[in-house]
Amino acid sequence: MSLLSSLYRHSLGLLTDLYELTMAAAYRDRNLGERDAVFQLSFRRAPFGGGGAIACGLEQVIELIEGYRFDDDDITYLRGLRGIDGRPLFSSSFTDELRELQLRVDVDAVPEGTIVFAQEPLVRVRGPILQCQLLEPALLTIVNFQTLIATKAARICGAAQGDPVIDFGLRRAHGIDGAVSASRAAFVGGCTATSNVLAGKLLGIPVRGTHGHSWVLCHDDELEAFRGYAQALPNNCVFVVDTFDSIEGVRNAITVGRELREGGHELAGIRLDSGDLHALSLEARRLLDEAGFTTTAIMASNDLDEDRIADLRRRGAAIGVWGVGTRLVTAHDSPSLGGVYKLAAVKNDRGEWEHRVKVSNDPLKISNPGAQQIRRYVEGGHPSRDVIFLEESPPDGSGTHQDLLEPTLRAGQRVEPPPPLTAIRERCRAQLASFKPVDTSRFPVVLDDKLERLKRRLVDRARGDR
Amino acid sequence: MSLLSSLYRHSLGLLTDLYELTMAAAYRDRNLGERDAVFQLSFRRAPFGGGGAIACGLEQVIELIEGYRFDDDDITYLRGLRGIDGRPLFSSSFTDELRELQLRVDVDAVPEGTIVFAQEPLVRVRGPILQCQLLEPALLTIVNFQTLIATKAARICGAAQGDPVIDFGLRRAHGIDGAVSASRAAFVGGCTATSNVLAGKLLGIPVRGTHGHSWVLCHDDELEAFRGYAQALPNNCVFVVDTFDSIEGVRNAITVGRELREGGHELAGIRLDSGDLHALSLEARRLLDEAGFTTTAIMASNDLDEDRIADLRRRGAAIGVWGVGTRLVTAHDSPSLGGVYKLAAVKNDRGEWEHRVKVSNDPLKISNPGAQQIRRYVEGGHPSRDVIFLEESPPDGSGTHQDLLEPTLRAGQRVEPPPPLTAIRERCRAQLASFKPVDTSRFPVVLDDKLERLKRRLVDRARGDR
Repeated sequence: MSLLSSLYRHSLGLLTDLYELTMAAAYRDRNLGERDAVFQLSFRRAPFGGGGAIACGLEQVIELIEGYRFDDDDITYLRGLRGIDGRPLFSSSFTDELRELQLRVDVDAVPEGTIVFAQEPLVRVRGPILQCQLLEPALLTIVNFQTLIATKAARICGAAQGDPVIDFGLRRAHGIDGAVSASRAAFVGGCTATSNVLAGKLLGIPVRGTHGHSWVLCHDDELEAFRGYAQALPNNCVFVVDTFDSIEGVRNAITVGRELREGGHELAGIRLDSGDLHALSLEARRLLDEAGFTTTAIMASNDLDEDRIADLRRRGAAIGVWGVGTRLVTAHDSPSLGGVYKLAAVKNDRGEWEHRVKVSNDPLKISNPGAQQIRRYVEGGHPSRDVIFLEESPPDGSGTHQDLLEPTLRAGQRVEPPPPLTAIRERCRAQLASFKPVDTSRFPVVLDDKLERLKRRLVDRARGDR
Repeated sequence: MSLLSSLYRHSLGLLTDLYELTMAAAYRDRNLGERDAVFQLSFRRAPFGGGGAIACGLEQVIELIEGYRFDDDDITYLRGLRGIDGRPLFSSSFTDELRELQLRVDVDAVPEGTIVFAQEPLVRVRGPILQCQLLEPALLTIVNFQTLIATKAARICGAAQGDPVIDFGLRRAHGIDGAVSASRAAFVGGCTATSNVLAGKLLGIPVRGTHGHSWVLCHDDELEAFRGYAQALPNNCVFVVDTFDSIEGVRNAITVGRELREGGHELAGIRLDSGDLHALSLEARRLLDEAGFTTTAIMASNDLDEDRIADLRRRGAAIGVWGVGTRLVTAHDSPSLGGVYKLAAVKNDRGEWEHRVKVSNDPLKISNPGAQQIRRYVEGGHPSRDVIFLEESPPDGSGTHQDLLEPTLRAGQRVEPPPPLTAIRERCRAQLASFKPVDTSRFPVVLDDKLERLKRRLVDRARGDR
């Protein structure tokens, strides 16, 4: 069962902005609703001051489109909406059509886990303009958020340089599926596990955890608390040592670690959650090693992000596992990705495709016209540049390359069965490895000549057309 | 039907961190699970550099607790989890108990829409420690996020000084209920409407919208596009004028406005979405007024927040309606509220309550012990100070006051029927009005003497206890 359909009971047709529905009503009223159009989703700037982003969220886009529907009570609700004169906003013939609506759009998209850049079309939707239009907000919500978090996770895991990174963000995430989606994207971006058990169940992500301070506080002392936990869960002992004093906590953990060994078990780890993580980790490592607990892991948490992890590693902190919460799941320093979904082509009343741009005084806000594809050239095993081109006229020229957008839905139905999440995560890992020597902040992304000329012509015409 | 149960199909017992479940297993194993405890939820610092926050999210906390359950497939999942030695993490007797678990906790809480301050207990949960513990992450997720967004909305609406503010944030929100919850909290904080139709239906929030650039782009020119929209939806015309050139767009809107009037309708508004909003609004107002459209509203959008709105208003921009998206629903400048949920008291094996603190080298991170209540004193009609006290020993002293935490759930069942969302919004409005002359960044929040002494004693003991 899909994530959305297992998580949500409510139909998601209404997960849209009102203006998409009024536009849909207007398209229909003007006999434009069935006219084919192409919309493309892209972002204008890479997040976190970086060069690229990890495409993520496509699977939920597919689930949304396949399960798209308006239930009877959605229709009842829409019929009750009123315009400024108090009369119904929507005709009942329009809402009747929504009730019967089955999406038959075609979607081509960059597979999840791929590194993408500003301006590039991540998702391309082609079909009746009314249908394409209704999907705008849901597609943006899903792809903006998961792409943002997968990218943040990749940065954090990159800083951890192979150490396990565990997503601890549930309690600071933006609502329930703000948490579940974040755990999914964090796993794609490289996290090894999550603390969120619901995400673990729904998505098959490994779940990990330690214990909280409250476990210690409900006992008379820390040693008794560790001992009790070890008796109850001898095969899951990672002790949080900072309830009173972190170093004393390490000593207590070692005491209980010895008792665990006598019972044939092992002290899996200790966790530092406050204070000077660098100094504490060195002292904890020394104590653990001296006591013969050389394989006991030291985990750290407490407002960590890529900068703090890099700093701690640079200074030689003896930390082997990183618990990352708030700053990962909220993308704290840049909590939104400015993805947009723009009309790029529409058929005229003679059935011919016409290209479209949205102009703006801000060059970044001028959209690219036409149904596009991305060609990624590879040199010496590493990506060398991306060319965005009009799908109908591929660039000449040679060189090893791959076109990034792949057929994803045809007439509203998925083309391939969903890949396992581990395969998406592996794609991300492979992409990051292949880009490793490349400076992504300077990675060349250019428009193909034909697309560039078309864009200039359309912009000139739009500005002359006023 | 409640928001959570209408939106979510999945049981939410697993919406927890793994360590809550392992602690629960350990509590049970050590015969501590049924021991009564008190946990309290508070935040350590007010967000956005302000003084207070708007309490929000309690209704979903109630829904979560009332509907709390583990389904069979949750239990199957938990039984499949393994510890480091490959053996089952949980005993089947523990998971059997979870399957039958019915929460019977008591909750006292500050009503939604109330202004609250750092350190104050927003939600107090009392009941078997195993049950209180499991709830930690879900309560934090819900209350942290909605309190954050309600507070942001109050700031933005305060800057708009009575002008309508509409939540346009769906496409940049953190997932589906990151959007729906944000719309709810934004409405509580003062927004007048949302673009999110699902939030409108589920929560009864008014929905509003204009049209997108794509409507204009799918026509041969803007005038034709406006005209077609007006024919389809004559009672919902707010034209987005910046697809090509905002001022030319205003002229086209006026042309179609005249045609609307001939048909007995009215041009409701125009929307500016890019460029110099200040200059454009003045010019648009002049053109509209000259053409006799003096009641046609000018709406603005484009990365607005409280600072930009205040700036535009200070400079006399002729904007009457504010569309606010990204920076509202992600709380862009401070996207998490650091709420925590701390054990404050637990019964010992003789059935006596014992107080608990979590110590830390950071004074802000030291929790307050005991079951607490907040007393708000009022002078001259305005709040003058808050005193946090031990519920069992109220402060002496006189003065008009109100105790903020109210009985909310008893033995897992809600005490009062849910208030309508409009009543919560009205409470927020009244609170903001009563605090108006008060500098919330200097509002005195103190611990009552007895609580202060108890805290000091427990901290000293904890530090001595090492």
